[in-house]
Amino acid sequence: MRQSQLFTKTRKEAPSDEVAKNAQLLIRAGYVYKVMAGVYAYTPLGLRVLENIKQIVREEMNAIGGQELIMSSLQKKSTWEMTGRWDDEVVDVWFKSQLKDGTEVGFGWSHEEAIIEMLQQYLVSYKDLPINVYQFQTKLRNELRAKSGILRGREFVMKDMYSCSLDATQHDAFYNATIEAYKKIYSRLGIGNDTYVTFASGGAFTKFSHEFQTICDAGEDVVYLHREKNIAVNEEVLNDEHLESLGIKREELEKVTTAEVGNIFNFGTHKSEQMDFSFTNEHGEKQFVHLGSYGVGITRAMGVIVEKFADDKGIVWPASVAPFAVHLLSLGEEAKTEADALYTELNSRGVEVLFDDRAEVSAGEKFADADLLGMPLRVVVSKRSLEAGGYEVKGRAESESKVVSKEELLSSLHA
Amino acid sequence: MRQSQLFTKTRKEAPSDEVAKNAQLLIRAGYVYKVMAGVYAYTPLGLRVLENIKQIVREEMNAIGGQELIMSSLQKKSTWEMTGRWDDEVVDVWFKSQLKDGTEVGFGWSHEEAIIEMLQQYLVSYKDLPINVYQFQTKLRNELRAKSGILRGREFVMKDMYSCSLDATQHDAFYNATIEAYKKIYSRLGIGNDTYVTFASGGAFTKFSHEFQTICDAGEDVVYLHREKNIAVNEEVLNDEHLESLGIKREELEKVTTAEVGNIFNFGTHKSEQMDFSFTNEHGEKQFVHLGSYGVGITRAMGVIVEKFADDKGIVWPASVAPFAVHLLSLGEEAKTEADALYTELNSRGVEVLFDDRAEVSAGEKFADADLLGMPLRVVVSKRSLEAGGYEVKGRAESESKVVSKEELLSSLHA
Repeated sequence: MRQSQLFTKTRKEAPSDEVAKNAQLLIRAGYVYKVMAGVYAYTPLGLRVLENIKQIVREEMNAIGGQELIMSSLQKKSTWEMTGRWDDEVVDVWFKSQLKDGTEVGFGWSHEEAIIEMLQQYLVSYKDLPINVYQFQTKLRNELRAKSGILRGREFVMKDMYSCSLDATQHDAFYNATIEAYKKIYSRLGIGNDTYVTFASGGAFTKFSHEFQTICDAGEDVVYLHREKNIAVNEEVLNDEHLESLGIKREELEKVTTAEVGNIFNFGTHKSEQMDFSFTNEHGEKQFVHLGSYGVGITRAMGVIVEKFADDKGIVWPASVAPFAVHLLSLGEEAKTEADALYTELNSRGVEVLFDDRAEVSAGEKFADADLLGMPLRVVVSKRSLEAGGYEVKGRAESESKVVSKEELLSSLHA
Repeated sequence: MRQSQLFTKTRKEAPSDEVAKNAQLLIRAGYVYKVMAGVYAYTPLGLRVLENIKQIVREEMNAIGGQELIMSSLQKKSTWEMTGRWDDEVVDVWFKSQLKDGTEVGFGWSHEEAIIEMLQQYLVSYKDLPINVYQFQTKLRNELRAKSGILRGREFVMKDMYSCSLDATQHDAFYNATIEAYKKIYSRLGIGNDTYVTFASGGAFTKFSHEFQTICDAGEDVVYLHREKNIAVNEEVLNDEHLESLGIKREELEKVTTAEVGNIFNFGTHKSEQMDFSFTNEHGEKQFVHLGSYGVGITRAMGVIVEKFADDKGIVWPASVAPFAVHLLSLGEEAKTEADALYTELNSRGVEVLFDDRAEVSAGEKFADADLLGMPLRVVVSKRSLEAGGYEVKGRAESESKVVSKEELLSSLHA
């Protein structure tokens, strides 16, 4: 894409009311636009990042047998009354409104009850199980405060998956497959090394749930880490009994600040019993479904990636989620023809390129914008680079550039 | 995909409260699930259709220079007060709610004002124009009644595009390019021959807007058609003065029932003046933006396609939007090995196949399901077909099947 056609512009300052680093940088670079506190629009650049993240998650969910669907935002009161979660005293993040006839409706902050109610229409026999479904849903949550940029919004995108299993054995197999799939996801997102499967509070059915916590200063969680044994414990469940059951000692643990980028939950048959979600087993008897739920914060993951990798010049995208693989800068009139030709060549080879073809922008501004925007590879075509035999290339996270020939560049991008 | 893995099931009867043919069939076939009146979830099958429709629209919008982004559902009161459209007396389909501190918020039923407010942050000079942006947004509208299935929902997906132009000339060029792009879209969706560019009421700036109206008994609009001159006029603007200006006579017109599948609107500078959406022109003077807005109902288009092509046995998808190109039926134990091999072969060639591999389902049920589900090509592998030299293939809209060899089938699917 030609940068001269991009309607967004970089800006030197973030809005004064924006305190989160992720949102400051994303707004300055033109990836997001702040509609109100906790509510962001995603510009063409930002949407490309989101879609890249979603595609990675989609591939890994499909690989373990997840089927994608899309539920509604509008929610019925009766659906959530079955588990007591319509009550604002129980769930304090509902947005609610009314139909014209006065019927109360809610806006989906979660979809567990809605999914169960839907699946009840289809599930009859044990032969129908397992069922594993997921969606990328825009969740609406009436958060009291929203100060963490896209890490915690009033409107955000989440991948939520739900598993319906015959029994604990079938459930556990899928639960464990999801843990492995999540590890692949965070690894592909570039945050795998700093993301820990973490013991957290469990709810009605299990002692623990599992969270995926990424070490991140901007996070809202505190996790105690046993690096050697690769065990992480959320502060909320840190007590002697739990530590003993996990075989670790308090003094061996390192306290870290983290952001929760995923969570997985074993509901057992608790919620199925509340909602009468059952099937006929092979003996002809009624049996309740074993349920699990599995979330990945899509917009939050984007924010965490910004927080973790950004430097004082701007965003640093991992290649897997970057909106463009290459930021091509054309500097000066003498380089224009060559830069145009390279842009065409890269496009024809399927390389995603953001081409800074702007005529009236200085070299300094183009370099600053490239750093702020954070594409993995910057390729400069200038009189100087051409005289030196090619293009000046630099990885966003590297400090030194080097001049490479056209052939070298093309073969490196193909590798 | 193996049908044995699909969690949805076909059903013989639609819910008794569902009166619209599109929703009856889509529910019976398992494409959508009714959450409440006017609110539907899209199952894996339904989501595939929606994504196919979106991709066609996306390609045509990109081809004329549209840039995809995604706005928020949550809307600020102040944004819409600028044009007077926060008022429930002016816009009677708002869903509204409140933040914890009592601040009123709305849920996006349209995004014109929101888009303008965002673009104000980026637009400075005439050199920044034109700007053409679009999104696929889930719109929420508090409709008094919702009885047309997915033709008119309280929650639905719309492609809405907005053009910002320097002047009337630049606007008109894009407006006309969009008309041509829309013609391509409806043609690709299979409803081009029955879709008419229709004169409709214009609003503050122009005498007419243009609607794209598809002849459809389930539609809510009435259009008067001059087939010879290819002119269509919405009933709402049918008067002698307009007819004269269009050079047609009332008695030459044919009255048809239609569904509005798209609309395009020239706002001129009216809304820009209301919202102070301006730029500096080449003389250094402030100038208001020429605005256009361009909608395509994505979920509605899906409903119209169902309404138009369905027969008494079920849905008939055009190939361009069908969730799968081929419905492969394995009949009887003797055909299993061959059917499995064909499924693998088709998958490896990139053909999208729904494979009815269900063991305990009769041939009759499989045929009935294939008709209800509506894939363009049904391929049956049975003892009989194998004895006759191959597979029995039938187009969904055809009445006769024929036996073809494996080679014939593969080459026809590749063509």
